[in-house]
Amino acid sequence: MALVVQKYGGSSLADSSKIRNVAARIARAKDCGSGVVAVVSAMGDTTDELIELAEEVSDSPDLRELDVLLSTGELRSCALVAMCLKSAGYHAVSLSGAQAGIKTDDQFGMAKIAGLDTERIMAELDGGKIVVVAGFQGITPGMDITTLGRGASDLTAIALAAGLGARRCEVYTDVDGIYTADPRLVPRAAKMDEIGFEEMLELASYGAKMNPRSIELGMVYDTPIVVASSFSDVPGTLIHGEADMNRNVGEIRNRVSGIASDTNVAKITVQGVRDRPGIAASLFEPLADVGISVDVIVQNASDGGTTDLTFTVKRDDLRRAESVVRRVSEDLGGRGIVSALDLAKVSIVGTGIQDAPGYASTMFRALADEGINIEMITTSEIRITCIVSARQVGEASRALHTAFDLDAPS
Amino acid sequence: MALVVQKYGGSSLADSSKIRNVAARIARAKDCGSGVVAVVSAMGDTTDELIELAEEVSDSPDLRELDVLLSTGELRSCALVAMCLKSAGYHAVSLSGAQAGIKTDDQFGMAKIAGLDTERIMAELDGGKIVVVAGFQGITPGMDITTLGRGASDLTAIALAAGLGARRCEVYTDVDGIYTADPRLVPRAAKMDEIGFEEMLELASYGAKMNPRSIELGMVYDTPIVVASSFSDVPGTLIHGEADMNRNVGEIRNRVSGIASDTNVAKITVQGVRDRPGIAASLFEPLADVGISVDVIVQNASDGGTTDLTFTVKRDDLRRAESVVRRVSEDLGGRGIVSALDLAKVSIVGTGIQDAPGYASTMFRALADEGINIEMITTSEIRITCIVSARQVGEASRALHTAFDLDAPS
Repeated sequence: MALVVQKYGGSSLADSSKIRNVAARIARAKDCGSGVVAVVSAMGDTTDELIELAEEVSDSPDLRELDVLLSTGELRSCALVAMCLKSAGYHAVSLSGAQAGIKTDDQFGMAKIAGLDTERIMAELDGGKIVVVAGFQGITPGMDITTLGRGASDLTAIALAAGLGARRCEVYTDVDGIYTADPRLVPRAAKMDEIGFEEMLELASYGAKMNPRSIELGMVYDTPIVVASSFSDVPGTLIHGEADMNRNVGEIRNRVSGIASDTNVAKITVQGVRDRPGIAASLFEPLADVGISVDVIVQNASDGGTTDLTFTVKRDDLRRAESVVRRVSEDLGGRGIVSALDLAKVSIVGTGIQDAPGYASTMFRALADEGINIEMITTSEIRITCIVSARQVGEASRALHTAFDLDAPS
Repeated sequence: MALVVQKYGGSSLADSSKIRNVAARIARAKDCGSGVVAVVSAMGDTTDELIELAEEVSDSPDLRELDVLLSTGELRSCALVAMCLKSAGYHAVSLSGAQAGIKTDDQFGMAKIAGLDTERIMAELDGGKIVVVAGFQGITPGMDITTLGRGASDLTAIALAAGLGARRCEVYTDVDGIYTADPRLVPRAAKMDEIGFEEMLELASYGAKMNPRSIELGMVYDTPIVVASSFSDVPGTLIHGEADMNRNVGEIRNRVSGIASDTNVAKITVQGVRDRPGIAASLFEPLADVGISVDVIVQNASDGGTTDLTFTVKRDDLRRAESVVRRVSEDLGGRGIVSALDLAKVSIVGTGIQDAPGYASTMFRALADEGINIEMITTSEIRITCIVSARQVGEASRALHTAFDLDAPS
């Protein structure tokens, strides 16, 4: 029997009428004759509310206990969805991450899936049941509850789709697919019918609302992912391994598939540290130790034996990062640090960008024509990213969307 | 090492400041040198809110799924309390019912504890940790989550106290002990210092706010229970096996230890059914089948071959009970049914009531002197119960409290 794995996000489950809608959609998939596994997120803003509650009882909530607390959000959703399906006459069963066999390491708050034990799910599917699984959570070998990181219900769904050999993983959310840019910033952004895993990975890492680890997992196991709206029947976007090749045949002259943007960016510059081997390590190791991820890093050319080193962090991490960096900078004999909060990343993403000339210059020219100053630049195989003022992220996105011929016909 | 099991009810955990208060009390017990296991209920009205949510997605929520849903309330509490203890520098760990080894049968919604596997709790206690256990829940042999029935966090606590060989089980709630009557009805009700298991069982079954199955469990395992307030340090009431004997020595002439009252009472009278063997069974079996508990039953003397049969049910069950009974009554050739909603039970409870003359007559006289009509009467070894109008439950309770010399000195 064909098996479909579906995943429903928190906004699709925000209240009881939305839960009934999700149950009806799951039932429809079952009616089509497939085996169905549905992975659900916590209702609406539940996770944020629970974090708030945790912060009311503890200045720095213990990660093991926070995982127990947060895991209850998805448990509630899966019980409610299964309940709703049963009262509509379907055979259904809810399973927690533990019951669904999602085995993880014990890195609370950001656990990695270490294995899948699909015995229980297979037994329930064999019994004709729709299986509703609590996303975002797993269990350690010592039987402690873990969570997989924010937005990681996608990860649960794709891991199950891969592990169960499903035809595809359908991710239902409050938007009807992946767009060539953020439609709130770029009114002429267009929904893509399909996109390749690698491009999607860059878009996800650089602003699109999908968990990058999920895309990676889909890529590794070659499990196609469909992103679509839970509120309509419009076809969504297919993320798969063959998209690039197909498209490149027809559209060889435009390899930019989308514009990613992200305003959660702050930067720190460490000024005038002695330019010798190991300074980057002595700066970034203590940041990693306190769990701060550094994104774009630029080290200026040396000037009289000293160097300026600039890097970006998430805006929320800035204050903590400053205090770590200030201390290290003093040890390194630096002149001090300066920082800025109001920055954004704008990226163009497309397979082959690196190999083909002209993309970078087109990008810089389009930004210059709008009077947008580029603070930092970074590139990958299939992406070019500029750090600009957060104020200008809309203008920048629109300019690039037009420059790379992505505008939908108006 | 001495071990104390504490239990905190929902009203003691209603918000984050109350959770901090509970954590501080648990920490104090740990500071006194005891091993501590704390069992917690869901915060405030969580369970009612979850039931409401379930009813929004299903007309008759599936019991297995309802148990998954409801169990999350206690999980949240235990994570928050453990988190709060840890951030105050204590070693603590939260455990779900499953992790705490509470094994049950698979009667969802009203599961019975089938056994305790104390290995994990013992390991955590041996490691010096305060163990915070989610009350009210367990796990079946097939690894499905169950709940033990409303108010059954007490049951979890007393089962753990018995299974772990704790000195006693401390039940913390929003009142400071067990009273000789409901203080809202009887201003001169007095807190009891101690009471025997059997009397407490009758008080609990007939109105006092404690889970009768918990008292029974304490009685079977001879585990003393202290009921006290989580908001003050006033000593509570000790429920134990030796209370009766001790008190009876000094107070041989007054064996009434308390007045129980309950206004959740409705009655149904089935009129003029043929008086033959088996009519009670044919009436009450269909009620049991739909899960309605029948309480007081009175069958009138036969009159010309027909009989009237009157019984009480919980007020919420009246409409459902009527429709079942109406059907059966027609099958039995009865004249019809009449019912009344606004009734109450008032009981006197005390060891030895049955053996000693005069208690019943004193009770009936006290009610008569207040002009209170008795609708039905029922008795047990240590209890006499009268069904009266709900309007008069306060007057009735006060009159009995005075008649049996229970009034606190004013």
